[in-house]
Parts: sequence; structure tokens; C-alpha cells
Amino acid sequence: MNGNFTYCNPTKLYFGRDALAGLGKELPKYGKNVLLVYGGGSVKRNGIYDKVVAILKACGKEIYEDGGVMPNPTIEKVKEGVARARAAKADLILAVGGGSVCDYAKAVSVSVFCEEDIWEKYFVRFEDVSCAVVPVGCVLTMVGTGSEMNGGSVITNHAQKLKIGHVFGENVYPKFSILNPEFTFTLPKYQMISGIYDIMSHILEQYFSGTDDNTSDYLAEGLLRSLIHSADIAVEDPLNYEARSNIMWTATWALNTLIAKGKTEDWMVHMLGQAVGAHTDATHGMTLSAVSIPYYRYILPYGVAKFARYAVNVWGVDPAGKSAETVAHEGLDRMQEWMRKIGLVMDLTALGATREMLDGLVDSTLIMDGGYKVLDRQDIRAVFEASF
Amino acid sequence: MNGNFTYCNPTKLYFGRDALAGLGKELPKYGKNVLLVYGGGSVKRNGIYDKVVAILKACGKEIYEDGGVMPNPTIEKVKEGVARARAAKADLILAVGGGSVCDYAKAVSVSVFCEEDIWEKYFVRFEDVSCAVVPVGCVLTMVGTGSEMNGGSVITNHAQKLKIGHVFGENVYPKFSILNPEFTFTLPKYQMISGIYDIMSHILEQYFSGTDDNTSDYLAEGLLRSLIHSADIAVEDPLNYEARSNIMWTATWALNTLIAKGKTEDWMVHMLGQAVGAHTDATHGMTLSAVSIPYYRYILPYGVAKFARYAVNVWGVDPAGKSAETVAHEGLDRMQEWMRKIGLVMDLTALGATREMLDGLVDSTLIMDGGYKVLDRQDIRAVFEASF
Repeated sequence: MNGNFTYCNPTKLYFGRDALAGLGKELPKYGKNVLLVYGGGSVKRNGIYDKVVAILKACGKEIYEDGGVMPNPTIEKVKEGVARARAAKADLILAVGGGSVCDYAKAVSVSVFCEEDIWEKYFVRFEDVSCAVVPVGCVLTMVGTGSEMNGGSVITNHAQKLKIGHVFGENVYPKFSILNPEFTFTLPKYQMISGIYDIMSHILEQYFSGTDDNTSDYLAEGLLRSLIHSADIAVEDPLNYEARSNIMWTATWALNTLIAKGKTEDWMVHMLGQAVGAHTDATHGMTLSAVSIPYYRYILPYGVAKFARYAVNVWGVDPAGKSAETVAHEGLDRMQEWMRKIGLVMDLTALGATREMLDGLVDSTLIMDGGYKVLDRQDIRAVFEASF
Repeated sequence: MNGNFTYCNPTKLYFGRDALAGLGKELPKYGKNVLLVYGGGSVKRNGIYDKVVAILKACGKEIYEDGGVMPNPTIEKVKEGVARARAAKADLILAVGGGSVCDYAKAVSVSVFCEEDIWEKYFVRFEDVSCAVVPVGCVLTMVGTGSEMNGGSVITNHAQKLKIGHVFGENVYPKFSILNPEFTFTLPKYQMISGIYDIMSHILEQYFSGTDDNTSDYLAEGLLRSLIHSADIAVEDPLNYEARSNIMWTATWALNTLIAKGKTEDWMVHMLGQAVGAHTDATHGMTLSAVSIPYYRYILPYGVAKFARYAVNVWGVDPAGKSAETVAHEGLDRMQEWMRKIGLVMDLTALGATREMLDGLVDSTLIMDGGYKVLDRQDIRAVFEASF
């Protein structure tokens, strides 16, 4: 690893079947007023909401409700949450849900004491936080985004057809996160599989960059092997605790900055997928799966050695007697076959996108420059076309 | 991963050729009085001491010297350090050196405000810290122990022929650690290789436990593959920055609690090696290498499946048509061959131990119970005998 970097991740994780007991240990560190953030109500149906409320009450907290966070949280909803947090004089924002709920909580956290237009400041100008933040805690009920141990927050602006992520600093990371794999058991299979691919994409977007020798790539390969192994089990048997626990833990370590250390990062699959999300409101992980293979085939010629390494170390391709390019493509063949097998969406039509949206999709795609090739608008169009 | 656990590692790491610039960012967070801890003087010869002192002075710190920390720091030296820290009213203990210096700094840190006998409290009764601690920072100059990002401290009591480690809580972890791979370049090759095996042993002692399906084992395999790859390069070319940087980063992640999550842990190789260290004062990593292969051959029958997995995933053994036990032994054969090749000490005689010490070595070995077989005194004797 050649570059200079810092690493600091202060989030405290409570993991396992008894993880929720950690909430009772953490709450006394914060003041009385808690903004309780959640999504469409599944946490009420599966009983997690009641368990959380019981602990909040036992700790003497005043609960201020903020439900109804949508899967791709909007800037309008964030502004509504900011008003609630201000009215409540919230001492803690407790997110109970998946990555969207946690992302939303962080967006509210950095906006409560901010006087500027928060969309412009954070998601257009990408400025750092310059005001106080309200601490965030998280009870995770869906796995994939890694939001439980990082500073990321992805917010959608429907008026502008934009879905944009900002990575905030350590002071915005959740102070604690409760990770009970059983809390993910009631998730519909489509959502579980979508989350699995979100994890895989996070790992790959950090892996497919750079030509140096870097321990981060070995860690990424370990996470990928664990993920593929456990996903195969979970797809057949969604209540397999070991498989679901490994997927949950892998998700956290896939995007908490560790495997990016000493590397540039790509993130074009997320940029392409987020454009699809802004136009269709499709499930995040499925927008990534639909564009991934076309994207990776497109950039493969610019990173042949790494794609060949991926094929061998992750997919077990035998390289004997083959060119690096052949090995590399065989790796993507196996990945594609596996993606189909576990039930991922492999084309944009299935997500409600149409060829008439092509211009809009290209317009909505932010171009990033950490991967093996910097795409231009023609390249982006070609990848989208290959994704139908 | 089946168990319940927590994870929190608050140490801030500055990594790379410019890492020392991080010291200037961290120092303003602490008071004026700094106890500057270092070893036998190599940091003065290679110029690191001067660089550190310049930054301390630029930050307006009062420097109180505490040099001469020996490779296996003694409880007598710790007590001397405690007296110095008290006299200095130290606001920060800055360790400049390898794992021994960092371990020593932590032992002083937890003892400055402790009224009890610290050997008895921490290293005999293994009690938690119940007093205030003095914050520790670290500038690392030797790689291996992982002490830069954990709560571990290993202290030697020559009078009692004991070398014992205590793992302190998060409040004792270094607040920050400066990791510049170039600072390890002047280390003698014997010390570098010794450190490489210390890292490998840390990973293996967490890997060789449990029968469940656990992401931690995949991460451990990634670290092992990176370590073996980079060690091969560093042994041929010790000034290869990428190799040395990967070894440094691997060392940190090998023992900062991550790859132990959801697992029991073994640590018998360390117990055996520390007994050798207490009787011979030999270099730590070499005491581990001398006993490892005999130990692993001894316990292999109790963990065949994991040793076979190790052989395939780490050493590339082809399992086709072979029994798991054959595969497992082939893995240890390759490991043994590799250890000899990079120059590790493979028997106790070379470390100054004699068969006359056998009774004493057995007496000095603490028995731990996380691995595939709990050893008794006969077992321990047998492993030591096979290590001559």
C-alpha cells in the first residue's frame, strides 16, 4: 500500500442474538429526548419497535416519533425530520431499520444545527459539516448498506432526478449499532438478495482499483468468499443463523473504510445504479446488479490483471494455459451465472426502466474517477444500453 | 458466527511515509507533560527520536525521558516507569519503539493511579483497571505485536520465571498510533523475520478454534495470504516499501480483536513461547516459531477439518483424492518449509534452551482452553520435547 491515510472508526457494535441488550447500556450516555426514526412500519409488525420502545421507556427517555422513512429517503422527508428533531430538542436520533433509515438519521443529524440549504451544502457542494451534530444510534433490521458503521448518507431529490451520497466524517458515524441477525429474518427474500448484492458491489468497487500490492485487496477477497459462501446458504435457507450472521458482519466490514485503505475507489456501479434509482425508485441492490456485468465487461480491458486475479482468487477459475483476458472473462462469466442463480435482477427492464429514459439516465449519472477507466457520457450510455 | 460479542476499537491510525505529521495533530489534545518512552537507543541512532522530539517541542510539550525499555519489559522496569510518570505528572505517555515499548507504556499507564501491587493485580489476578489511566500514544518502529491498536501488555517477572500478558479494555488502547513503514527499515533482518512470525502466530491462534462458519476465518485467510506474499518479498528485499507497508498493516489487523470476533481463541503457542522467553530472554517471534510446528502437529487430530481448510485456502494444497488428514499435514509441511526458507528458528536449542530446562518450561506455561484440545502438563512436555 503506497499512499498516506488515516483510519479511525469509533462506532461501537453489539452483535448477536442478545445484541439489543446493548441499547440499555448505551442510552444512559445521552439526554432525555430521543427521536425514534423508522420506515414503513415493518418494525411494528415484527415486534422490534415494541422491544426498542420498552428499553427506551425503561431508561426514562422521552420518545418523539419519526416514522415513514421511505426506501430511498428524499430531501423533503429529511427537512421534515429536521423540523421534528428541532421541536423535540433531540439528544439522540435512534434509527430502527435498514440503511435508508440510518442514512436518513445521519442526514437529519448534520442538519439540525445547520442554517444553510442542506441539499446544496451536502449533496451538491459536498461540504464538510461545520455545525454541531445530534448523535445517532442504530438498530439494524436490514443488511447491505454498511451505514451502521460509516458516515455515508444517500438522499434522493426527485425534483432534480438525483440520488446522491455524501460521506460525512467520524463525528457523524453512529455512536453505536445493534446488529442482531435474527432481526433480518422477516425481510422478504427479494430484499435479502438485493442487500447481498449491495454488499458485493461495495467490496468490488473498492477492489477494482489500483495496481499496487495491497493488503486491503486480500481482505476484500476474504469478505467476498465469505459472502458468496453464506449467500448460497441463505438463499436456500433464509433462517440459517450462521449464514445470516456472516452476511450481516460482512456488510458492516464491506463499507466501513477498512478495505479502501491505501486505494483509490471506483463507485461507478453505484453512480449508474443511483441514476436508475432516481428514475425508477427501484430497490437499490437490484439497480446495482442490473448494471454490474455490463459495466465490468466494459472496463475489463483497462484492468485485466486485477480481473484475472479476481477470477482465480474469488471464483476459483483455473488459469493454467489461458491468457489473463480469458481468465478475467471467465471470472465474470461465473459471477454472472451466480448472480442469476441467487435471483438477482440482471436487466433494467425488470426494474421499470425503458430505453426512452436513456438520456435522462445518462444525465443523472455522476462521473467518478477512481476506477480503471474514467467513463465519458458515451461510455455511460453504452453501459446502460448493454443493461437492457 | 454464533456468539454474542461487542466490537469497538477507538485507536486512530496515521499510516504512510508522512504518518509522523499526525503526531502534531494529536499532541494539542493533551496536557503539557509527556513521558517519552523508548528502548535501547536505536531510535536515537536512526533519527526517529530527534524527529519526535522536534514535534514535541514545536507543540510546546515538556519532555520527561524514560528510555532503556528492554525487549521483554520487566515488572521492575514498569515500577520505575510508574515513578517517573508520577514525578512528571504525565499527561501523555508517548511510546516510540516496537511492541515491547508500547506494551510497557500501557502497563505504566494503568499503574500510575493504582495503589495496589500491579503484578498481582493485573498479571496474576487478571483484574480490570479500576483507576484512572494516563493516555498512551505510539510511534511504531518495529512490526509484529499489534500492540499499536489493542489493549495487550506482556510483562516479564524474572524472579518468578513468568512472562504474562493482560488484555486491558478500550480505555487503555493507544489513543493514536503513527505507522510509517520506513521507520521499520533499519531493523535487523532477524528482528523483521521474528516480527513476521509473531504476526502469523497471532492470526493462526485466532483461526485455529471453533467449528462454525465464520467470516472472521475468511478475513484471517486474507491476512495470512497477504503476509506470506509480502514476507517473501521483504526477506529478499527488506527496503521494498509495498511489502513492508503490507506487513505493517497486516500486523495491526492481526491482533486488534477483529479476526477473533465470534470465536474462541487458542493462544497456546504464545503460552509455550512466553515460557521459553521467561527462561531464555530469546526474541519473542522466534520462541513462537520454534514451538509452532510441533504444537500444530500435536493438536491436528482434534481439528482436522480446519487444518485441511488451512492447507487448501492458505497454502494452495490440492485436496483431490486425499484424506482430510493428509491434506492437513501437507499444509503444515508447506508451512514448515516456508518458515525454514525465510529464516525462522525452528528449534529451542538455537534459542539457548536446554533439555535441563524442561521441567521449568512446563511449570512456566499457562494452560489456556480455547483451541482444539486443552493440553495437560504431559502434553506440554511432549510439545517442548518435540521442539528440541
